[in-house]
Amino acid sequence: MYLAKVYITLKPTVNDPQGLTIKGALHNLGFTSVEDVRAGKYIEVRIKENNLTKAEEQANEMCRKLLANPVIENYRLDLEKA
Amino acid sequence: MYLAKVYITLKPTVNDPQGLTIKGALHNLGFTSVEDVRAGKYIEVRIKENNLTKAEEQANEMCRKLLANPVIENYRLDLEKA
Repeated sequence: MYLAKVYITLKPTVNDPQGLTIKGALHNLGFTSVEDVRAGKYIEVRIKENNLTKAEEQANEMCRKLLANPVIENYRLDLEKA
Repeated sequence: MYLAKVYITLKPTVNDPQGLTIKGALHNLGFTSVEDVRAGKYIEVRIKENNLTKAEEQANEMCRKLLANPVIENYRLDLEKA
């Protein structure tokens, strides 16, 4: 069993209205030292698979096919034995 | 300048309809080895602050006051020099 931790972020050139809204709210709360905020997704997928390479392959395929939108998003994967 | 990476997850006992939907979609795509999916948020906050301890304090306060809902969510922080 492996736990795949998937971090999905918008590509740097893509406009991020959610991040801008959070930044505005933080400024309003008095956190004036906040320069920039980018909002992304974090997904944990538990995979029933004993082979690390196979688990990693599957997780990558899941990201390409469903979890991340390759046009506007980047993703990063961490796998750990669970 | 520090970059705070904030990982926000639902507490284990909290129901996660988004995660269940993703799990269903992965099963439909043929990823039958997926046991469980939990969906969370990943936020990057760039803080204009030279002192690591102060930056960390601020990031923690932001999480408590705005980014995470302590009733149903846990958060984890990583700070790195940017």
